[in-house]
Amino acid sequence: MADRINADRLLSDLTHLSQIGAGPDGALWRVAGTKADRAGRDWLDKTMRVEGLHTYYDDIGNVFSRRENTSGPWLLIGSHADTVPAGGHLDGAYGVIAAMEVLRTLHETGHPMADHVETVAWFDEEGVGPQSAGGLVGSTALAGSAHADDLVGYLEIHVEQGRRMEDAGLDLAPVTGIVGVRRYQASVSGQDNHAGTTMWADRQDAGRVAARIVAALKDIILGIDPKGIGNAGVIHFGPGAANVVPGTAGAELEIRASSDSALDDIEADLHQTVSRIATEENCAATLTRISAKPAAHFDKLLLDIVEETCRANGRTDRLLSYAGHDASVLSTRLPTAMMFVPSTGGFSHSNKEHTPDEQLVLGTQALLESVLKMAPILLEQPKSPVALAA
Amino acid sequence: MADRINADRLLSDLTHLSQIGAGPDGALWRVAGTKADRAGRDWLDKTMRVEGLHTYYDDIGNVFSRRENTSGPWLLIGSHADTVPAGGHLDGAYGVIAAMEVLRTLHETGHPMADHVETVAWFDEEGVGPQSAGGLVGSTALAGSAHADDLVGYLEIHVEQGRRMEDAGLDLAPVTGIVGVRRYQASVSGQDNHAGTTMWADRQDAGRVAARIVAALKDIILGIDPKGIGNAGVIHFGPGAANVVPGTAGAELEIRASSDSALDDIEADLHQTVSRIATEENCAATLTRISAKPAAHFDKLLLDIVEETCRANGRTDRLLSYAGHDASVLSTRLPTAMMFVPSTGGFSHSNKEHTPDEQLVLGTQALLESVLKMAPILLEQPKSPVALAA
Repeated sequence: MADRINADRLLSDLTHLSQIGAGPDGALWRVAGTKADRAGRDWLDKTMRVEGLHTYYDDIGNVFSRRENTSGPWLLIGSHADTVPAGGHLDGAYGVIAAMEVLRTLHETGHPMADHVETVAWFDEEGVGPQSAGGLVGSTALAGSAHADDLVGYLEIHVEQGRRMEDAGLDLAPVTGIVGVRRYQASVSGQDNHAGTTMWADRQDAGRVAARIVAALKDIILGIDPKGIGNAGVIHFGPGAANVVPGTAGAELEIRASSDSALDDIEADLHQTVSRIATEENCAATLTRISAKPAAHFDKLLLDIVEETCRANGRTDRLLSYAGHDASVLSTRLPTAMMFVPSTGGFSHSNKEHTPDEQLVLGTQALLESVLKMAPILLEQPKSPVALAA
Repeated sequence: MADRINADRLLSDLTHLSQIGAGPDGALWRVAGTKADRAGRDWLDKTMRVEGLHTYYDDIGNVFSRRENTSGPWLLIGSHADTVPAGGHLDGAYGVIAAMEVLRTLHETGHPMADHVETVAWFDEEGVGPQSAGGLVGSTALAGSAHADDLVGYLEIHVEQGRRMEDAGLDLAPVTGIVGVRRYQASVSGQDNHAGTTMWADRQDAGRVAARIVAALKDIILGIDPKGIGNAGVIHFGPGAANVVPGTAGAELEIRASSDSALDDIEADLHQTVSRIATEENCAATLTRISAKPAAHFDKLLLDIVEETCRANGRTDRLLSYAGHDASVLSTRLPTAMMFVPSTGGFSHSNKEHTPDEQLVLGTQALLESVLKMAPILLEQPKSPVALAA
């Protein structure tokens, strides 16, 4: 049987988890490594400790569950247990609870595939705590561990965190891959000076350089990749007085694109633009790459299966993910796929995060059906030769 | 006689004053209201307490000196005694010491005009202390006081604080007036959101609005007044994270022009531009005027006299002042004029502030000659009808 997940249990468990680490406004504070985060993982662990299931923590703090006395290999399903500060109740949590619901459904109905499914609640995906090395901590540890040899694939369901699905009227979306993300620090050096007595031609206005770079970012990206995205979220002028021409300035720039070659081209254009604007304003500027996550491309076979089951359950179209996910790390080691459910209004990382119950249920059902379709194929074929990405 | 000032005494007094409130790098910390500022004014007061001269503090803290037993009216000459934090040794101080040198020269040589000259060291021109209401404190108090009725005019010499004179090879410059200065707070309200999952069309990027406004400022000003100047010295994006689209942003904008009507036109264009950019970026923005100093236009007769004596002493051309000075306040109450000597490299508000001794001496000599030419005329004519400005 195993053909229907338990919708009431799914929604009830989501509600329960959303009360761990909640602030008065419902926003969640389960930042990785905090007491609330640990309480959330402990609750997940405890919830899966039912007759016939085995749960365990690994060394980094990921929480797993699977059937007792099974020897694998397993198809891993899950998502992350942590939140950003004042985060939403679905980002990560939905994929964890949905995976648990899938395993429990298989387990309770005695489906033979129940022996080959493992769930995971990843530790520290968000990477906002002071101890965190940029997030994806738990999944990165797993991808580099021996346990990955016991796994045949990874499947994750997540809320979209944008509004493309809602705008297009989609219920479910197979995710083709995850954009690569690079971050840069633009640092501008000019000369602070009297804002009245320094004529335009004599200025070395570092603030003007930084503002022009920020204003140029969108056109640079779109000129190279019409689907590229970017952000300038941080800016600073020094010394920071209304009547002083800024002598120093800085901005943090972020770019996202579906391929590393597009990111290379955007980066090259950004370097040229920074240099040109600095020269025009008699300043010196540097653009330093401070982080780079490569683009991820999900497994073609798994993607086809996910698409088929999504289509069977609702309005479906393929999407690229503009946010990072643990699945990007796993895809360097295992055949991997992802699916999205919509985010109402596109809100995420906020207490406004919401997805209608009906779509949460549809997604979990499609996850179950995907697992049932892909697990046998993955178990039969020789281990896929996915190279460890640099 | 009274035809030559004492160059050695002038330079020696400047050196002495530059040691009061000096940091290890020579920068001056005589911020109005501090112990060092008071020590500086006390030293000025003491220095002028010589036989036959009378010195006094008024209620606000300005220091005056004039001949004993004179009943006025007087032509007032001087500048301010305070500095910005880490300021230079000439900004203000030069005009004070030069005025003192002129009075002492007249006094010692028994010139009849010595009875009709008063010197002033203004309190708190810079307006950087926590107690200060935006600077020009001492001169504003005097302009509103009864003592202003005893005065026939005001003349101030100051360092240029820019490099126009050096670039043009000028020794002395009659100042035609002082730019009006207006400051604005631009406040932008958008929606903070995930920097990856929020598509361009869905963004309300307040940071992008602020950056585009800052980048547009120069063209707005130059499109209206080719001699106008402006600055964006302060900017802020909120919440200020590399991966969050800024939901709020702010910038402080400053504009300077030689007439209030040009400032009006720039302000109108600025309002339009802020509104247009905010609309283009799906944000809301306000532009609030937070301060306005009207443009000052100096007395035509006094300006002609200053120009004549400047020309007799060195290479001369008329200039507009882009920095505020006590003379702007006095010009609302009394016939007023100003003159500049060059600032090497244009540096001011810094320990790099410098003017060659020769030009400091030339300026003081031109000040003396200006006083001797204008005082008799001012004393003879009925009191000029200068209206108190709003």
